[in-house]
Parts: sequence; structure tokens; C-alpha cells
Amino acid sequence: MPTLSERIASIEKVTDVIGERTQALLDNKTKPRRSLGRLESLACRYAAARGEAQPAMPRKAIVVMVADHGVAAEGTSAYPQAVTAQMVLNFAAGGAAINVLSRLANAELALVDMGVITPTDAKLSVRNGRIAAGTANMTQGAAMTHEQALAAIDYGANLAHELADRGVTLIGLGEMGIGNTTSASAIVSVLTGLSPRDVTGRGTGIDDAGLAHKIEVIERAIVRNKPASNAPLEVLASLGGFEIAGLVGVVLGAASRRVPIVIDGFITMAAALIAARLAPAAQGYLIASHRSVEPGHVHATNALGVEPLFDLQMRLGEGSGAALAMGLVDASIAILREMATFESAQVADSGA
Amino acid sequence: MPTLSERIASIEKVTDVIGERTQALLDNKTKPRRSLGRLESLACRYAAARGEAQPAMPRKAIVVMVADHGVAAEGTSAYPQAVTAQMVLNFAAGGAAINVLSRLANAELALVDMGVITPTDAKLSVRNGRIAAGTANMTQGAAMTHEQALAAIDYGANLAHELADRGVTLIGLGEMGIGNTTSASAIVSVLTGLSPRDVTGRGTGIDDAGLAHKIEVIERAIVRNKPASNAPLEVLASLGGFEIAGLVGVVLGAASRRVPIVIDGFITMAAALIAARLAPAAQGYLIASHRSVEPGHVHATNALGVEPLFDLQMRLGEGSGAALAMGLVDASIAILREMATFESAQVADSGA
Repeated sequence: MPTLSERIASIEKVTDVIGERTQALLDNKTKPRRSLGRLESLACRYAAARGEAQPAMPRKAIVVMVADHGVAAEGTSAYPQAVTAQMVLNFAAGGAAINVLSRLANAELALVDMGVITPTDAKLSVRNGRIAAGTANMTQGAAMTHEQALAAIDYGANLAHELADRGVTLIGLGEMGIGNTTSASAIVSVLTGLSPRDVTGRGTGIDDAGLAHKIEVIERAIVRNKPASNAPLEVLASLGGFEIAGLVGVVLGAASRRVPIVIDGFITMAAALIAARLAPAAQGYLIASHRSVEPGHVHATNALGVEPLFDLQMRLGEGSGAALAMGLVDASIAILREMATFESAQVADSGA
Repeated sequence: MPTLSERIASIEKVTDVIGERTQALLDNKTKPRRSLGRLESLACRYAAARGEAQPAMPRKAIVVMVADHGVAAEGTSAYPQAVTAQMVLNFAAGGAAINVLSRLANAELALVDMGVITPTDAKLSVRNGRIAAGTANMTQGAAMTHEQALAAIDYGANLAHELADRGVTLIGLGEMGIGNTTSASAIVSVLTGLSPRDVTGRGTGIDDAGLAHKIEVIERAIVRNKPASNAPLEVLASLGGFEIAGLVGVVLGAASRRVPIVIDGFITMAAALIAARLAPAAQGYLIASHRSVEPGHVHATNALGVEPLFDLQMRLGEGSGAALAMGLVDASIAILREMATFESAQVADSGA
């Protein structure tokens, strides 16, 4: 198994050269220059990450990692912890939002139990990436050990390699786990240097008193663990969740195979931020899908240097926004591959 | 043939009752309430327009109407007028952006020559809706006669009925015609009461001097015609284009069949605004897709009381934004139809 340093070292920095060649191809299509706006820059970003000016149409997968959080004992969620395991069954049965949206996006769905309290029935179509039966309560110490964080990263990275081996060229990130906006808020607070108050929101839908309590829990967890903001692995181990750690691995593994990654909402943004702090070269492979309602999302995207494609006021997670964004990636690459050029269509080009 | 008044009278007002029933269905799906944000309100709007709380998956068509504009003689576009006819050939050959995007959206594409200067070869898969070989120059009088405006509306309305007869339940609006942002800016200026300066942009890509000239041309056209702002048909005839008039008809015809309409960019927004001024009940059938780069777009959407779903900095037209938005309508209805309920999936509901 490669070490984390080896995984990081294997990520090639994305250069501007390929993206510029893609833009030149787009500038020759029968439309005013740049008139498809961010659809064109999206095509360039995907192409640059793939390392080909005119890549094939994407083959897509969405990885949904699920785990329980010890911090849920502090009562920071609107839902009981048992909902995590219930939702795994719902994912396996095909009834959740991400089942519907991944089907529509023509994306393979890879479901992973990274550490739900109730182990998932082995007969279900859910992968076993279990690190433990939920993290420890981060207000009383580290959420996980250093070794657990590394094991979860390894699991995610290996899964990304498996998908890349099977020809997947675009991976969406998804997650579920009662309590995980609490974890993500703590991570984003430490990594951005902003206060928990600035980056914490209502998650699945708590009220004002619940929000004040959630902020106080996050403050306590940070004070208890005191992770150094320039030590992303320590931040992950002390404040993270197993699904977040697994997604860090997915980002690192995908980037090392030049497979672009579509980020979803706030939790996957926290995972992507940790990955980019560990491996700055991974940034070039990241595509932000939507602007989440969670207030910390904008701070995390700014810290990452990515710009969401749309804002539909969503706050579900599961990879739902990533699935919708995959339709835009498809559209951008189809435009690049299928549109006529001014010359081939004999249309006059103003150069405008 | 029904009169315009009869067409208007046949549009049923969309009531809130159905949309509320749709929202109740969505509130029972396995996700925090309203956590899919505008995807949920989109499902409600589509369902309310269809008049069914849980409608079937949409059957989609995009109508692209093309015409030439006499005002192009004033040199307000970055492209020569011949490009209109060249683009018709490109549409017919399948090489334009809307060909690619409508294929991806699984939407039928209905191409219509509403009055290109060079008549389209009858052997091509382009419908003949020709009113005349381009409009007259609106700086020298009305762009079209009252009768021509009514004939174009009739053509568009009949096309919408034909599509509805064949089972189409969602129609996207598209257009092409050198000079048509000049026409749309003039229309939006009069209908919103804003000055041409506030609602006029660079269209296909003119420079600062070109923009100043375009504004001056629009001011001259409005002064020459002096259409009353409360007489939408007069505004259309004096400042419109045949493709805009045809799209007004598509909106009226579709709305009378309870077929929701997806608006594209600035020109289709001007057509939708005229339709809604003629028939206020049509408003409930309109879905705004994207926020166009054209500065008049936001004023037109405000006047219409619609809110675009996304902003990808696009300014192409052709129905390109409408095609992308159709993927979101599909997603919203798939969520409504296919997701499990809390009860069916045995997931605990917090009520949050």
C-alpha cells in the first residue's frame, strides 16, 4: 500500500496548456466567442484535468460514504442517530434522492459503509469500508486515531483507483451521517481560521436554540483537541468523520489518476479542503457543483479557490448537487466534441 | 382559426392548490423538508401548470424560431446579416449548440424559418413559418404590420398545439436572428419603462462604440414608433421580429394546453413578457432557465415575476439555457415520482 506521502507525490499538477487548447477549439465553434460562458470554462477545466484537449464523453460514478459520528450524542442534529443506518437501507433499496439523481445522470453509484454504528448487512449492495462503529465524541478527545484516519484515506483512494481502472473519468462525492455538518463546520473553522459562529449552519434543520448549542459544541471540540490549522491530517483525525476521511482519500486517489472530482455540499467541501491542504496539486482536479445553504460553504469554496456552478438553495448532501452538475459537465464536453466549426459549417466568423 | 382574444381566454389561471399538494408529497420523501430547495419549487411549478400533483415525466420539445431583422441595416450586430441563413443550415445539419444540447436533454427540436431573408430550402428539416423576408427597419417605421404580428402569433400557437397533440408536456423557447437583441432591448425598454441604456447589452459581442450606437438606434426606433407601453401587440408589431412574435404565439398556445414553457435568454424573455402582458394567466406556465449576461434580462425577469434557476454567464440564445434547465425539470419530477417516503423506507422523520 502506498504511503500518504507517496499518494500525494503521485498527483500531477494541472497546467494551463491543455485548457488553453480546449478554449481554442471552443473559440472555433459556431457561436460568438465565450458565449456559452461557464459551460466553456467547465469544459476547459475537465479537459485540463484529464490531460487531453478534446477528451471522450465522461464516464461517471458517484461515491456516497456513510458513517456515524460520536458527536451526535451532544444532540446537534434534528434527526436521531438511528437515521444513518436507516438511510443506508434506503440507499441500498434505491429510494433516496441520490439514487434517483445518479440514475438520471447516468452515473454508477458506489455506496460505502465507512463506519455506521449498526453494521450494514453484507448481503446489501453496500461496500464495507468500516473503520469502526462510529467516531468517538470529539468534545471528549480526538474523533479518531491517526491510524484510523490513514486507513479511511487508504480505503477511499483505493476505491478511486478501482473506479479509474474500470474506465470512470469523473467522480462525484456524496455522504450521509447524522452529525456530519457539526464535524464539517469544526474542520472548516480550523482550516479557514474563521470562528465556528461564522461557518456553522442548521444542517438538516435545527432551530435557533439548536444552532447556538451546535456552535457551542463545536467550540468545545476545537478547544479540547486544539488541532494545528496547518496540520490537515491532525484536523481530520481530531474533528472528522470516517466518511469525510474516506472522501479525502477518494480525492487524492482520483487526482492521482487525472480523474476530476465533483464536490457536492458542505461536508464534501470540507473533505476536498483537507485533501487540497494535504496535496495542493489536487486543487486542479476539483469541480464545485452547487452553493450550499450552509453558511460555511462559501468560506470553504473561497479557501479552496473554486466557484460553484449553480445555487438551487439545496442542503441535502448525498451527492445530490454533484449529480446535477454532472449533467453540465456532459453538456460542456458534448459541445466541445459535437458542435460544428465556423469552417465546417460555412458560417461567417466575426471574431467577436 | 381562433382569434387572439379567444386564444387568451382559453388560458386557465394556475392555482396554488395543486402545487401545495405536490409540496406535501415532497415533504414526505426521505430527506429533510425542503432540503432540495429550488428543485422542489420547480417540481411544484411544473405540477401546478400541468394540473396534476404527481405528473408523468416530461416529454420535451425545443422550438427554435429564426428570422431576419430590418434593423440589422443600422449595423448593430457584430455579425453580418447573412449569418442568420447560414445558421439555419447549421441547425438543419445538426452542428449548432442547440442541436447538441437538445439531444442531450432528450428534447425534440422544432426548427422554424419565421422570415429569413434567404428562404430556407424546403428539402431541409426546417418548418416554413415565413411571414416575410425579414422585418422592416424599425428606425423608419413599424417592423411589421398588425396583421403580420397576428399571423406569426397564430403560427406559433398552432405549433404549440401540434406539439401538445403529440404528447409534448414541456416546451423550451429558442431563437436566432442577427439583430434580435436590438429588437428585444427596444421591447423590454418600452414594456418596463426603463431607458434603452438600462436594458441594452453587447449581444453577440460589440465593442463600446458599437454599444453606444445600438442604444442610439433603439432610442430612434422607439421615438419613431411611439408604441404605448400598455399595448403589447403594438409594441410587438413596431419593435419586434417575426421569431419573437412566433414565440409569443408558442407561449399562448402552450399555456392554453397547460404545457409549461421554459424561457431561454433575453430574446425569449422579451417574447414571454409580451405574452404575459397579453395574457396575464400565462405567467403561471413560465419557467425561467438562466440569467443571461444581457443587462436587460434581469429587468425583464423582474417584470415577469420569474426567477432564473442558474447563471452560467451564457449569452448564446438558440434555446441553449432552456435545454440545460430541462435537465433540472426532469430531476425535479423524478424526485417527486421515484423517491421513497419516510413510511415506505422506514426512516424516522424529525419533521424538520
